[in-house]
Amino acid sequence: MLENGPLAKLTAQLASLPGIGPKSAQRLAFYLINQPPQVAQELAKAIVEARASINQCPICHYVSDQKECPLCQDFKRDSTIICVVEQPKDVLAMEKSHTYRGLYHVLQGCLSPLNGIGPDNLTIRDLLKRLEAKTVQEVVLATNPTVEGDATAIYLSRLLEPLPIRVTRLARGLPVGASLEFADEITLAKALEGRREF
Amino acid sequence: MLENGPLAKLTAQLASLPGIGPKSAQRLAFYLINQPPQVAQELAKAIVEARASINQCPICHYVSDQKECPLCQDFKRDSTIICVVEQPKDVLAMEKSHTYRGLYHVLQGCLSPLNGIGPDNLTIRDLLKRLEAKTVQEVVLATNPTVEGDATAIYLSRLLEPLPIRVTRLARGLPVGASLEFADEITLAKALEGRREF
Repeated sequence: MLENGPLAKLTAQLASLPGIGPKSAQRLAFYLINQPPQVAQELAKAIVEARASINQCPICHYVSDQKECPLCQDFKRDSTIICVVEQPKDVLAMEKSHTYRGLYHVLQGCLSPLNGIGPDNLTIRDLLKRLEAKTVQEVVLATNPTVEGDATAIYLSRLLEPLPIRVTRLARGLPVGASLEFADEITLAKALEGRREF
Repeated sequence: MLENGPLAKLTAQLASLPGIGPKSAQRLAFYLINQPPQVAQELAKAIVEARASINQCPICHYVSDQKECPLCQDFKRDSTIICVVEQPKDVLAMEKSHTYRGLYHVLQGCLSPLNGIGPDNLTIRDLLKRLEAKTVQEVVLATNPTVEGDATAIYLSRLLEPLPIRVTRLARGLPVGASLEFADEITLAKALEGRREF
C-alpha cells in the first residue's frame, strides 16, 4: 500500500495545503507521478524559486521579487491615493478591475480579537508612517465586507480622522449580474442606502 | 504585478494541475510564499522524490517504489483471485474496504473508442499472461459503473469466457446511507434486479 513510501509522503504534503482535501491530494499525487518527470521537476522548482525570491515590499507589504514592489516603483501611478487591503491577493483583485491607478497598502490581515490579532499585528504603523510624508490625499479602505473587515475599516477611519486626509470606502450594493430576487436583505438595504441619481 | 515573475510562474504551474482552477492556484501560491521556507522545500522534495522513485509494478501495473509492488510481493494475499480495476487509485479504494485479500490488476484506463483507447492501450495482454499460470480461479471485474467501465467489463468477460475461470463483477445497488427517495431510477432498477434473500 506504500503507506510510508514517497507517494504517501507526497499525498500528505498536498493534503496539508489549504482547500485540498485527502481525495484531491490523492488525485493530484497520482497525476504527478503519471506525468513526464519534467512536469514534477518544474513544479518543484517553481515552488522553491517563488518562496526563495519573493518577499514583502518594505513600503506597501505587497509581495515582491525585488526590494521594493513594482507597484511602489511605478512612477506613473498616482501617489496621492492609497488603497488599504487585507491580503496581497486583494491587490491582484483590485488591479484586475483596471479602474484604480493609485498605490496600495497591505494590512496582512484584519483585526480579529478572538484570534488574538490586534492593531500591532497588522501593518498599520507602516501605513501611518507613509501618511506622514503628506503627499497622500485620500485613503480608500478596501477591507473585505465581513464583520472583521468592517471593524478594521472603522478602526482605521477613526485613527485617520485627525489627519487632513479624505478617507473613503468601497461602495456596497448589488453585485453586477445579480438579481434582486436572490440578493440577501442586508446587501439590498445597503444598495438602497447608497442609491445614486441617474 | 509580477506578471512574469516567480509568483506568476508558480501560479501557472499550480493552475495546470487537474481540479485546480486559477483562483485556487492563486490562493495556493500565496499560501506557499507566506509559509516558512522549509514548507515549500519539503513539498518540492516530496514531488520530485515521488515522481523519481515510483514506477509501475511489472506484474499488476499498480504503483510501486520497488521493482514489484508490495501487494504482489505479499505472500499472505490470496493469489487465486485477481481484481481488475481501471486506475491505481481504485486499488487504494478497494483496500480501504478491508474485505478483499486477493491480488489486483490495473488496466491503466478503460476502453474508450472515441478517445482512441482500444484493448491494446490497456494492460489486458499482461492480464492474460498472468492467467496462463493457472493459479487464478476467479477474476473480479471492478471497473467503474460507467458506460465505458461497463463496456470494458463486458469486453473482458467475453475474452475470459473460454478460460476455466470464474468471472464476477461488483454488485450494483443502493449505496449505504442513501435513501430510496433520492436514488436514480437505474440504480434502483439494479438494486431490485440484484435483490437477495434475507
